[in-house]
Amino acid sequence: MTLLQNESVHATYRVRDKEQQLQKRAEGIAIGLTIGTWTELPQARLKQVSAHCGQVEGIHVVSEAEDGQVVADITVSYPVANFDATFAALLTTVFGKLSMDGEIRLVGLKIPTSLQKRFPGPKFGVAGCRERYGVQSRPLVMSIFKACIGLRLPELVGQFEAQSLGGVDLVKDDEIFFTEQYATPEERVVAYRDTARAVAEQTGRITHYAVNLTGPVHRLLDRARRLSELGAGALLVNVVAYGFDVVADLARDPDVHVPILAHPAVSGAMYGGDTYGIEADIVLGQLARMAGADMAIFPSMYGSVTLGRRATDNLLHHLRDETSVHKTSLPAPSAGIYPGLVPQLYEDFGDDFIVNAGGGIHGHPQGAAAGGKAFVAAIEAVGHGMSLEQAALSSEPLAAALKKWGPTK
Amino acid sequence: MTLLQNESVHATYRVRDKEQQLQKRAEGIAIGLTIGTWTELPQARLKQVSAHCGQVEGIHVVSEAEDGQVVADITVSYPVANFDATFAALLTTVFGKLSMDGEIRLVGLKIPTSLQKRFPGPKFGVAGCRERYGVQSRPLVMSIFKACIGLRLPELVGQFEAQSLGGVDLVKDDEIFFTEQYATPEERVVAYRDTARAVAEQTGRITHYAVNLTGPVHRLLDRARRLSELGAGALLVNVVAYGFDVVADLARDPDVHVPILAHPAVSGAMYGGDTYGIEADIVLGQLARMAGADMAIFPSMYGSVTLGRRATDNLLHHLRDETSVHKTSLPAPSAGIYPGLVPQLYEDFGDDFIVNAGGGIHGHPQGAAAGGKAFVAAIEAVGHGMSLEQAALSSEPLAAALKKWGPTK
Repeated sequence: MTLLQNESVHATYRVRDKEQQLQKRAEGIAIGLTIGTWTELPQARLKQVSAHCGQVEGIHVVSEAEDGQVVADITVSYPVANFDATFAALLTTVFGKLSMDGEIRLVGLKIPTSLQKRFPGPKFGVAGCRERYGVQSRPLVMSIFKACIGLRLPELVGQFEAQSLGGVDLVKDDEIFFTEQYATPEERVVAYRDTARAVAEQTGRITHYAVNLTGPVHRLLDRARRLSELGAGALLVNVVAYGFDVVADLARDPDVHVPILAHPAVSGAMYGGDTYGIEADIVLGQLARMAGADMAIFPSMYGSVTLGRRATDNLLHHLRDETSVHKTSLPAPSAGIYPGLVPQLYEDFGDDFIVNAGGGIHGHPQGAAAGGKAFVAAIEAVGHGMSLEQAALSSEPLAAALKKWGPTK
Repeated sequence: MTLLQNESVHATYRVRDKEQQLQKRAEGIAIGLTIGTWTELPQARLKQVSAHCGQVEGIHVVSEAEDGQVVADITVSYPVANFDATFAALLTTVFGKLSMDGEIRLVGLKIPTSLQKRFPGPKFGVAGCRERYGVQSRPLVMSIFKACIGLRLPELVGQFEAQSLGGVDLVKDDEIFFTEQYATPEERVVAYRDTARAVAEQTGRITHYAVNLTGPVHRLLDRARRLSELGAGALLVNVVAYGFDVVADLARDPDVHVPILAHPAVSGAMYGGDTYGIEADIVLGQLARMAGADMAIFPSMYGSVTLGRRATDNLLHHLRDETSVHKTSLPAPSAGIYPGLVPQLYEDFGDDFIVNAGGGIHGHPQGAAAGGKAFVAAIEAVGHGMSLEQAALSSEPLAAALKKWGPTK
């Protein structure tokens, strides 16, 4: 195997320390997390291990802190040869022991093409999803089951039907839907598939079902293939709870032939705050896409707890960057989304994203079907350069939605 | 499936909020993270979903905070029926969306026996490891490879041999050892196994090799089985990087017939600080044991960055609690361990633990073999009620270690 000497993963860490300690700390990371030691090696070995040695790439003081300390960003490079093609290797190397080293946060990660290529990336990507769902240019619309646990199959089907009648492109499970007591994922996929076909005779649209992929890891691939075969629209995957390597296996498998919709559950445990952990855009943007998320859910700017402007911009960049070897992913901002917000959504996200609504559909005064219709009407309006108020004149559902939640701003 | 109405998972969260908001917030969690809604359900449905509804079990104000807020612990119960037998279900339910809800930290988790039983727990446990490694009553001694990356097999074998000559029970890989460029895990297991046999002719002890389990998830089980067959002493697993469900599959598999040694790499991203994330004792103690860790590494109290007294005590309790359905796990405190510390280690950990040393072995003035011998001598001394100074009279390695690092206190 040819060793590409110049190819390294660059990781940037935000730390708090005394300024005069930063260089030593950075070197400790670069050497300690690769070859372990430099000064104690015999001469003969230096050359052979040097190809694996980490390097300090930069130290940048960000601000003053208390006690004569500063906040600084340290960038260290790790030779690509130190990794295998797993997220386990990536994370253990760049933020394994180091994650336990006190106040330190992984804030940046640059992965060279030669290593990126060994990860699957999205199987469908934006273009593949558009083709799959028959949506050529506008944003997709996704509804969320209001609740699933404890409901019997006929009740679940009723919810799916109501949402489908709204003309939405996708309906996703509640990501906490694990119990198979009343309806297995397989039964739900079949029932909703049949329901969607019946509804399509009315609406002209097939509504696709994003089923929560659940169960032990050693059965997950088989289940994903089976759900694909049965007609699932997408697989909803709790990517942090399962681990990105589990997701990557799904994305690599040719018999898993439906898009993967990544859910960010548990990720807050990693990105919360700004002193420890890993930045949200790395977890929910960069790694999610590399692992194969065709569509990636993340907390929107419109909810009560947001990622902040910078992290959101970075996250979008990670999902959409076309210099990556991987197909681009569809962002699905979640929380605080109602029909009147659609023009703002277009401003913030363009066309390639998913309008992802829970309360904004189920909370519609006329019910979930009307909620879906309101979103569809709003999107059509913006697509045709029409104001929502204008469009509401010929859409009762949209009018009711604007009355309840208002237009934007 | 009989629904045991009283059986619930209890999760305790530490939050910061206005005191008068706590009850509402707690109810929002209990309902929102289970059945979704209560007030909007038709009468007929209330009974059937009530079995799945979360409950507020307690709210306890811990301290005053700024801005008229308080820090409080909220305990919510989630019916066991809502879960399947995966960590993905457990974490997504109790700390999925909620992890992204601002300043909130999972600080406690009680899992009823009926659900615990569905997780594998350690295959060997303390008793099984003792039998396996032929160590009846004293603490085990484990050495850590000083460095692995970039070294060729003969050099690695040389390091293993030196550590074995010290008479240690186990030698573990550097957990960042992923590259197979010069030696695959399989080659290493065979080479070290043969080396250990040769060394045993001198020392009378077999030193066992904890090989880093690496590679994509879909090949991990096969690799684990193969490494077991080839004679690995244990599997070193980066449990957080791979995910606990991946670990559980290894622990369940009867053809993976070697103990699992859990490494805490990446866990700091989850437990760092006290405002977000998940407590260290839950991640590295409770979940690690449930997933099948026979031996569990965690940051010791003697290093530069510690978990703190409370988290350490809780972690030990999780690993050792005999009211659990699972076998107990061996704690392996890591960092700042040198031979002179052994009496303190006995005080802090008793007999059932692993003396886990890196620098304390490789930094010995007479080399790694002497480092191992110093630890073995120290443990023998304490086991026989002898002072280290006394034992050092007949152990040159121990004498040199006490001179370099001192005795305890």
